[in-house]
Amino acid sequence: MASPNTNQQKEGVVGRVLALSKVVKEKVLGISRLTKEIAQDDPRKVIHSLKVGLSISMVSLLYYYQPLYENFGLSAMWAVMTVVVVFEYTVGATLGKGLNRAIATFGAGALGVGAHYLASLAGTTGEPILIGTFVFVQAAIASFIRFFPKVKARYDYGMLIFILTFSLISVSGFRDDEVLEMAHKRLLTIVIGGSACVMISIFVCPVWASEEFHYSIANKLEILGDFLEAFVHEYFKISKEGESEDNKGDFKDKSFLEGYKKVLNSKSSDDSLANFARWEPGHGKFKFHHPWDLYLKIGAISRQCAYRMEALNAQLSSDTQGSFEVRCTIQELCSEMSLESSKALKELGSSIRTMTRPSSSDTHVASAKAAMKSLKSLLKSNSWKETNLLSLIPVVTVASLLIDIVEFTEKIADLVNDLATLTQFGTENTNQAPKPPQSPHCESGLKTDNLQLVILVEDSVLTTSESEKSNMV
Amino acid sequence: MASPNTNQQKEGVVGRVLALSKVVKEKVLGISRLTKEIAQDDPRKVIHSLKVGLSISMVSLLYYYQPLYENFGLSAMWAVMTVVVVFEYTVGATLGKGLNRAIATFGAGALGVGAHYLASLAGTTGEPILIGTFVFVQAAIASFIRFFPKVKARYDYGMLIFILTFSLISVSGFRDDEVLEMAHKRLLTIVIGGSACVMISIFVCPVWASEEFHYSIANKLEILGDFLEAFVHEYFKISKEGESEDNKGDFKDKSFLEGYKKVLNSKSSDDSLANFARWEPGHGKFKFHHPWDLYLKIGAISRQCAYRMEALNAQLSSDTQGSFEVRCTIQELCSEMSLESSKALKELGSSIRTMTRPSSSDTHVASAKAAMKSLKSLLKSNSWKETNLLSLIPVVTVASLLIDIVEFTEKIADLVNDLATLTQFGTENTNQAPKPPQSPHCESGLKTDNLQLVILVEDSVLTTSESEKSNMV
Repeated sequence: MASPNTNQQKEGVVGRVLALSKVVKEKVLGISRLTKEIAQDDPRKVIHSLKVGLSISMVSLLYYYQPLYENFGLSAMWAVMTVVVVFEYTVGATLGKGLNRAIATFGAGALGVGAHYLASLAGTTGEPILIGTFVFVQAAIASFIRFFPKVKARYDYGMLIFILTFSLISVSGFRDDEVLEMAHKRLLTIVIGGSACVMISIFVCPVWASEEFHYSIANKLEILGDFLEAFVHEYFKISKEGESEDNKGDFKDKSFLEGYKKVLNSKSSDDSLANFARWEPGHGKFKFHHPWDLYLKIGAISRQCAYRMEALNAQLSSDTQGSFEVRCTIQELCSEMSLESSKALKELGSSIRTMTRPSSSDTHVASAKAAMKSLKSLLKSNSWKETNLLSLIPVVTVASLLIDIVEFTEKIADLVNDLATLTQFGTENTNQAPKPPQSPHCESGLKTDNLQLVILVEDSVLTTSESEKSNMV
Repeated sequence: MASPNTNQQKEGVVGRVLALSKVVKEKVLGISRLTKEIAQDDPRKVIHSLKVGLSISMVSLLYYYQPLYENFGLSAMWAVMTVVVVFEYTVGATLGKGLNRAIATFGAGALGVGAHYLASLAGTTGEPILIGTFVFVQAAIASFIRFFPKVKARYDYGMLIFILTFSLISVSGFRDDEVLEMAHKRLLTIVIGGSACVMISIFVCPVWASEEFHYSIANKLEILGDFLEAFVHEYFKISKEGESEDNKGDFKDKSFLEGYKKVLNSKSSDDSLANFARWEPGHGKFKFHHPWDLYLKIGAISRQCAYRMEALNAQLSSDTQGSFEVRCTIQELCSEMSLESSKALKELGSSIRTMTRPSSSDTHVASAKAAMKSLKSLLKSNSWKETNLLSLIPVVTVASLLIDIVEFTEKIADLVNDLATLTQFGTENTNQAPKPPQSPHCESGLKTDNLQLVILVEDSVLTTSESEKSNMV
């Protein structure tokens, strides 16, 4: 007969087990939710995972298939290892790592074999000492070279493999006299593994770093444009005429007001994507020597813009909104400056995206500058009776930040024009033409739709490249 | 007899050889200059290179020394490989990689052995198919998990090694029935290699990521403080009283005006240093659970400050300097705001650096806020006869940016006070004491000297951690 005490104990145990199972269930649910999110955000990540599985399975054939195994024996291991280590998310990163690995293995293998022969001349006692010295000196020098900025940027992995191969070949040589064969097999299997990676990453649903970088820059400009539009709506509380009713403007604007934050810290992601893009062969719209430096410059100025937007955004949430009167007076011109800059930035972004010459961005920049000029003369005019400078501060600050942004927009427009000339963007719209003949209303509606889609897609692209950074470097 | 023609040819060849040798000489000189620069900038990089050489040589003993070799045989290779791959510049990065590698090898090894036994039950035809399937599924799932943000941040390398080990063990098992022994040897050699790295990186001139991170945050605050001081001098062209004659103020200021640029893009370096620091065991002044999150917050706000400084710096180089009159009127208060914020930031920086409670920063923040209040009431007063708003823009913008900076300084001061409480900073100076009894003049002179030294040293630290990022991730 069970006493009440043991019953209580049983209940306690059951309770704890239930609580534990609940925790486990929540964890599992959380993980599966995250999995679903990542997979839906960017299905290419799922495809990438399958590609990695495929490459490793393919290279494992070197083990399974008897005639191949007879050739390579245990060295087949190096092929598997190469695939695991070299396969990266984008083609450029994979190619960069693969080439680094192959060339470093070749160079270090040759030197290692040389070191082995040199050491073997020194007799049984001298050999390990000499080999040890070689390995020490080589590892120390190569490790130091890894600190050179240019080497670190592009050849860091190669230097690592150089140290690895040299040490392995020369040290193994102490036990195994067939060093040359070993070095040869190692190089061959690494080339096989590396080629398998490169082939699969290029020919099976490739993710080009060039495209990622290209679209991320276009996306940045569009994000900045969206911010300016949303800022005007929020700051001057205008309900813009001609906005379609079904546009849930307010909610959209709020998220657009945060977009620039992604741009603020985009430098390292830009740098690594540009580095990977440089490894990629010409493909599609991108030639081998695509002017990535121009993209980096556009990225740098868009960050400058984003810094100003950070200050603008702070003004939105500030308690002191400044003189309402002055705000109303400059409202029209400030709105025009922002909206024209916004249109110019979006146009420039979509011009990069579609690789067509920007048709109306110069007009928008010109309008923004004209508005800036008018604003300046309005401010210069003697019609200001307000003498309370404090209430002017927030308004004047906004005006000043917007003036900066107009200037940055002009710089970006110049850079995009340079890019269009250098890479011969399609000229379906004539350059520097006056406003296009279609109704601007219809055009802007169309653009907004496009943009929404684009933001959805690009959002994931940006997250990808951000996270990739640590993955690939 | 040589014809003039051949003579000319000879001269041409000689000329070309001379030109080539000149180019080579320049290259060599350039490289040796770079080497010298890097070595002088941060001698720890030289020491790091020697440490890598030492570790590899030490681990090579597994090959040279007969009794050891009998135990491990070819598996000794894994020890060398581990050292090359795991040894990183800071202790935290090395520890993180080493632990990731050891744990992943253990887990994947166990699973790989299991997969091998399971597959061997399926008979000769079924075995390779089953193993291939296991490898494919495992590689795909693990590759996908690498996209999870938390996994990517801390366990990316572990996942890579997991894929590698599982594939190697289960695939090799197909040819070699002693899988268990292989897995065991692999794990053991990796642990030996990893421990060698960790030991050497901890006990031979360690470079702690905790310290790097700690000092880089302190340095950031000091850089921001220097900027504000230099800005005041440059913008209001004040020759501050009490500045010693031998101080080549102008040149110093110019370089201080550029310092904030290092802070702008410091997010990724902060993130990776914080990540490495979390792997490090308690040592010296840092406990195991040092509040690195607070450091990250301070870093984030100092970037916000830097964004405003970017805008301030743009005002310096702008053509339109605004009304001289107004500038003179607000000069005193603006200078006080900047100088007090500057003092507070420098004090906070040096308080972090020395891990002592900030003694006077609260006073400085209070003075800056008082100046801000006075400025606001000055601006509010009706004494402004100037009605040309345009000429006010630059001046008012500067004032507004400085107001933002004072607010950020206050936030930073709060965070540093939190940090001081949490980590029990030394309390040699009483907290929130009124101005210290020493002559402030003497104190500030002393601080400037300290700072100059500190900037020289820290400059190299910052470059290190910046470049390290790609090295270590």
